[in-house]
Amino acid sequence: MTEPLAPGATIGILGGGQLGRMLSVAASRLGFRTHIYDPSELPPAGDVAHLVTTAPYEDSDALFAFATTVDVVTYEFENIPTLTLDALEDHAPIRPGREALRVSQDRLVEKEFLQGLGLKTAAFADVPDMAALATALPQIGAPAILKTRRFGYDGKGQARIMDPTGAEAALAEMQGAPAILEGFVDFSHEVSVIAARGLDGAVACFDPGENVHKDGILHTTTVPARLSASQRTDAVLLAANILNALEYVGVLGVELFVTPQGLIVNEIAPRVHNSGHWTQNGCVVDQFEQHIRAIAGWPLGDGKRHADVVMENLIGDDMDRVPELAKDPATALHLYGKAEARAGRKMGHVNRIAG
Amino acid sequence: MTEPLAPGATIGILGGGQLGRMLSVAASRLGFRTHIYDPSELPPAGDVAHLVTTAPYEDSDALFAFATTVDVVTYEFENIPTLTLDALEDHAPIRPGREALRVSQDRLVEKEFLQGLGLKTAAFADVPDMAALATALPQIGAPAILKTRRFGYDGKGQARIMDPTGAEAALAEMQGAPAILEGFVDFSHEVSVIAARGLDGAVACFDPGENVHKDGILHTTTVPARLSASQRTDAVLLAANILNALEYVGVLGVELFVTPQGLIVNEIAPRVHNSGHWTQNGCVVDQFEQHIRAIAGWPLGDGKRHADVVMENLIGDDMDRVPELAKDPATALHLYGKAEARAGRKMGHVNRIAG
Repeated sequence: MTEPLAPGATIGILGGGQLGRMLSVAASRLGFRTHIYDPSELPPAGDVAHLVTTAPYEDSDALFAFATTVDVVTYEFENIPTLTLDALEDHAPIRPGREALRVSQDRLVEKEFLQGLGLKTAAFADVPDMAALATALPQIGAPAILKTRRFGYDGKGQARIMDPTGAEAALAEMQGAPAILEGFVDFSHEVSVIAARGLDGAVACFDPGENVHKDGILHTTTVPARLSASQRTDAVLLAANILNALEYVGVLGVELFVTPQGLIVNEIAPRVHNSGHWTQNGCVVDQFEQHIRAIAGWPLGDGKRHADVVMENLIGDDMDRVPELAKDPATALHLYGKAEARAGRKMGHVNRIAG
Repeated sequence: MTEPLAPGATIGILGGGQLGRMLSVAASRLGFRTHIYDPSELPPAGDVAHLVTTAPYEDSDALFAFATTVDVVTYEFENIPTLTLDALEDHAPIRPGREALRVSQDRLVEKEFLQGLGLKTAAFADVPDMAALATALPQIGAPAILKTRRFGYDGKGQARIMDPTGAEAALAEMQGAPAILEGFVDFSHEVSVIAARGLDGAVACFDPGENVHKDGILHTTTVPARLSASQRTDAVLLAANILNALEYVGVLGVELFVTPQGLIVNEIAPRVHNSGHWTQNGCVVDQFEQHIRAIAGWPLGDGKRHADVVMENLIGDDMDRVPELAKDPATALHLYGKAEARAGRKMGHVNRIAG
């Protein structure tokens, strides 16, 4: 399919968390229906979807049945099993495509891909075992961070090595998973670019946001970010470089460290991104609609920002603050409908609009 | 229930058209689920709802089952049968309340209610039969408009009487339905106020919008409307007057004629209103979320407007313009997911943001 999807078409979404939920709402604004596929019962996105399939990602019968009801497949997370993609790809286009998943599912492959594009990353080394770690550590230097190559998110699957004596304990924390050693980057702050590429190759970027993390989880994103004009240009150009290299279709998040030596790419996420939630109250077309437009073959929004926004995540018992937050007329609430407010769980976010 | 509804609660919505659809999306932003009740298969709101009941409004078993799943009942249209309300009211609070429905379901009752508040309306007379029409016409004067007392919308159930010789033909168009004769109002333009009242009695108004109709259907709403400062104050005060008199909970639309003699109330609608769709792209809390906040017992948004907006309805084959409209970065699309673009059918709207 290269024709634009007509309103009334159905978009399949792998993963029914808050990102799938907000994608589903955006799809409805353009007249599309959604079909959510998620292994868990009552996923948050199911509250705002036309259809929900509850089945494991390895259930090829369920995947086939799902694929026959949808016109295009997209996803809210990058760790989709290869088997799932194999089962789907003959029946419906998968957007963003598999190359983006292959690259972003593995920190080592991702770093090599980024360096191949001439982009700066932290120093890194493949660490299949203790011998490799012992070799790599003197080259990378301590402190450094050992990370599993796959399935890490929100600071999970990571261990700091403050000096060589801590190497063995850090490797044990990987529990035998293939790992990568990354050097520390001396950065002043982190920003991210939420960028999109359409089916026709057009690229549009939202204004970079400045991110602050707390306990390894994104805490706030502020737009505008502290960036010089040339840094802003660099950020946009490198995001476009990545999108074009992947022949990407959809929204992609790029996390960047700001350093005196320029912008260093931390990681990329082939999906809508927590640091792009501010666009819901700062742009005519937000990141969720932008993603839907891209995968549906529609023209992209231009990413223009009409307000200064601070996005703050509501984690766990931050939900207790909702009655107070609801009183502030400059605060837009976005709650995810999750039943249980567990510690560390993303329950919602607020966008505070300035002026 | 007078406590605020907690996120996770379920809101029942009678009617699954575009208003129910956008109410459902707004409810999801606050972490609520919705249950849509509609007699037709696959209502537009069903695409973004947790539950859908397809049953007639007179099916008391289905209504009872529906009521047991919801924490509060609201509606997207005012012509809800009394029987439906009787079946629901013992099981869940109905917001806005029945008094607002009783008044707004009948043009005669509504006009008498408004005059009782000291508000100006068009001249009117009850016209149960031809004798009454013959008496009323010389008092009201021609031209005048004969309207069915109940079930009129988008110009349906109306007949103009240009001079007394046309009276009999106009009455025949009412097909025996009780009617009201209304005098013509010499107005320069029409505006509407979208106002809300919370469970605690707090009132908030959105900035009045200026409406242009085409073929009896709303065509555009423009904010800001052409109003003097004192007219703007009058508009807000009379809306508050109506809300308080009805002990109203929720969003109400008030259509006003602007005349040299002041503002004349055309009609009220006890629900979110087409002329309030601009709020989706002009306010932090739009009319749909405002309604959900009110019926959930939450604090209201303040109604502040952050942009100039022109809302335009997409009717019937206006849908053919969607590919062009999608290219304009200042245009926010809102499509309703209706399968068939029949003539006169509201298929979507666009909000054009200035500046």
